[in-house]
Amino acid sequence: MTTPQTLPLTVVADELERLRTEHPLTHVLTNEVVQEITANVLLAVGAAPAMIVAREEAAAFAALAGAVLVNVGTLYPERLAAMRDAITAANAAGVPWTLDPVAVGVLDYRTNACRELITQRPAAIRGNASEILALAGFGASGRGVDSTAGSQTALAAAEQLARDTGAIVAVTGEIDYITDGEQSWATPWGHPIMTRVVGTGCALSALVAAFTAHAPDRLNAVAAACAVAGICGERAESACDGPGSFKMAFLDALYQISPRQLREWQA
Amino acid sequence: MTTPQTLPLTVVADELERLRTEHPLTHVLTNEVVQEITANVLLAVGAAPAMIVAREEAAAFAALAGAVLVNVGTLYPERLAAMRDAITAANAAGVPWTLDPVAVGVLDYRTNACRELITQRPAAIRGNASEILALAGFGASGRGVDSTAGSQTALAAAEQLARDTGAIVAVTGEIDYITDGEQSWATPWGHPIMTRVVGTGCALSALVAAFTAHAPDRLNAVAAACAVAGICGERAESACDGPGSFKMAFLDALYQISPRQLREWQA
Amino acid sequence: MTTPQTLPLTVVADELERLRTEHPLTHVLTNEVVQEITANVLLAVGAAPAMIVAREEAAAFAALAGAVLVNVGTLYPERLAAMRDAITAANAAGVPWTLDPVAVGVLDYRTNACRELITQRPAAIRGNASEILALAGFGASGRGVDSTAGSQTALAAAEQLARDTGAIVAVTGEIDYITDGEQSWATPWGHPIMTRVVGTGCALSALVAAFTAHAPDRLNAVAAACAVAGICGERAESACDGPGSFKMAFLDALYQISPRQLREWQA
Repeated sequence: MTTPQTLPLTVVADELERLRTEHPLTHVLTNEVVQEITANVLLAVGAAPAMIVAREEAAAFAALAGAVLVNVGTLYPERLAAMRDAITAANAAGVPWTLDPVAVGVLDYRTNACRELITQRPAAIRGNASEILALAGFGASGRGVDSTAGSQTALAAAEQLARDTGAIVAVTGEIDYITDGEQSWATPWGHPIMTRVVGTGCALSALVAAFTAHAPDRLNAVAAACAVAGICGERAESACDGPGSFKMAFLDALYQISPRQLREWQA
Repeated sequence: MTTPQTLPLTVVADELERLRTEHPLTHVLTNEVVQEITANVLLAVGAAPAMIVAREEAAAFAALAGAVLVNVGTLYPERLAAMRDAITAANAAGVPWTLDPVAVGVLDYRTNACRELITQRPAAIRGNASEILALAGFGASGRGVDSTAGSQTALAAAEQLARDTGAIVAVTGEIDYITDGEQSWATPWGHPIMTRVVGTGCALSALVAAFTAHAPDRLNAVAAACAVAGICGERAESACDGPGSFKMAFLDALYQISPRQLREWQA
Repeated sequence: MTTPQTLPLTVVADELERLRTEHPLTHVLTNEVVQEITANVLLAVGAAPAMIVAREEAAAFAALAGAVLVNVGTLYPERLAAMRDAITAANAAGVPWTLDPVAVGVLDYRTNACRELITQRPAAIRGNASEILALAGFGASGRGVDSTAGSQTALAAAEQLARDTGAIVAVTGEIDYITDGEQSWATPWGHPIMTRVVGTGCALSALVAAFTAHAPDRLNAVAAACAVAGICGERAESACDGPGSFKMAFLDALYQISPRQLREWQA
């Protein structure tokens, strides 16, 4: 197992600058609960979200997008079929796709779906420790989106999962670890209040997807997405009175964060 | 008809303390419009929401949950089937389930569905006066989620509905009444601006469900949920400039409200 | 092509006063992403939204409503069938319905659906320049909800579309143009940050629908809806630090804006 170093802020700055320049069209197939916050997080940071969810449209649009997100939070057969179509089209077009395996391991239907989907060459996988352990076959038990294991305990599982699937795997928690199976980064930012606002994890996965669009270095891209969310989470927490004002301040922070600030902060 | 006394704040404090300790896993099957605010209200107060909506998963998850919410706001056949499965599994496992009969009486499809569902031993039912009158067969007419009758006029209907179904019935409005058919509480808190934010009523029903999880006294639990929402609504209103800032402040207030504050306020 | 004059604020004031008095029941069939903000925008301004989406209920409810909105952002066959039913019932009952042709021209499925729907006598159509150009058959290319053409370039297309369909057509952007094919208004208010919050355009279409309810002058009604959104957008922007606080302030502004203020501002 590697001992990950903290991601340099200069890398975060470079990746954020690239995203802001490219304004990547991000095709989002996510769960019913978090569609609005997911779109708002992507818009705030400078990406261009599009929720195209029907089987009649998903494949055609995935091929046009810069990146695709697949999140299984409220999975059902018709939506799963659209996800499969989008993934096939994305792979054929060379468009990277990211998996958020929400609550995998808790319920058989989504567990089986996730095990199938990870054979379809995801560019990235983002989950909490319980989810990454379950997906890697390490047999953890979660209870939905809550993680009952620390993210460090899942690092070995993440590395294995990355080697098995070819994806960059991000296991997020108090410290996030991002690995390609050989090299890894740690991103130590964030705040526990983020777990009191629905969709912060799901929206992070959408950020991961957006950063993978046209990324020259996919490991750095995924790690930068985690860093941006964590840093903005810390800034928002310092200005909030609870989860309502946190969410507002988090979106403002994603809009305000700049490559220049990050470089000055590093120096 | 009873003449309900105001729920003592010491009861609210005790129930809130119990909820915060138990962090109940609350299985939410609700309408398309309010999923995010419902999850955020539950997270803010200290419960653990999970929106598991597919027929493939609803029954399995309901049996694992502390409580289940069924809200018919945007009902269609596939979702209704998942609700039926969740209810059957919840009843088999001894998990209490709560019904929010949104706009019952206005449209036949949901009216028939609600009349069927209330035969399945709900632990609690939460609605406005029009909805409770319609569900009890008193023949009121609403127009969607707006109530065209005061909550006091619906108290007799609520008592009848509680006796007929075995549920605790909460009829909410300017004053909320909560009854088991024999004993009743009044909770006089809240503010009309809450009706200008979508989902405050639906999220209250989710709070009702969360409070029923493992509740030793179900009447007190349901009444405490109404009280917490009303008190936090008043606090949020005093700090807001309109419905946008109200919603933010309401979530902050749900996060900040403490059993200790409630006990000091009573004294 | 007409040279539109700026809509007088006295007209905005009159239309807003009418809406606040009538509190129109607005039947919303919109996309999955924006249901909450759409309902909140309608509630904030003083309308009464109802999201009735099932085939089992859509026709019955449309006939009871003051106005209907159809938004194709996340279209799929079952929802399209409900929209068709609602439109047929609305037309039979004399209830005006508004179309938001989200991303028409980008994907065949929704393009074909929109081309079919505009033959069903919409009262109003609201889109950005790319959408109006595509719908009028002028062959523009957008990429989802982003508009790649200015709204003025679409004015000729809007006028043609209005004459072809009988609808009031609003093409919105830096300046909005609202036309019945013969007469047109311009509404110059708004701010680019509105494009960084998902659903501001979709919610504007819902405002358009609400203002058409029982409108004695449909052109003025649609233009007033655009003006109210733009003016409130400017006010919110002046008080915000980013898209999170913008959204909150926008809802507050919709609640606070008054006919009296508008008349004083004009004078």
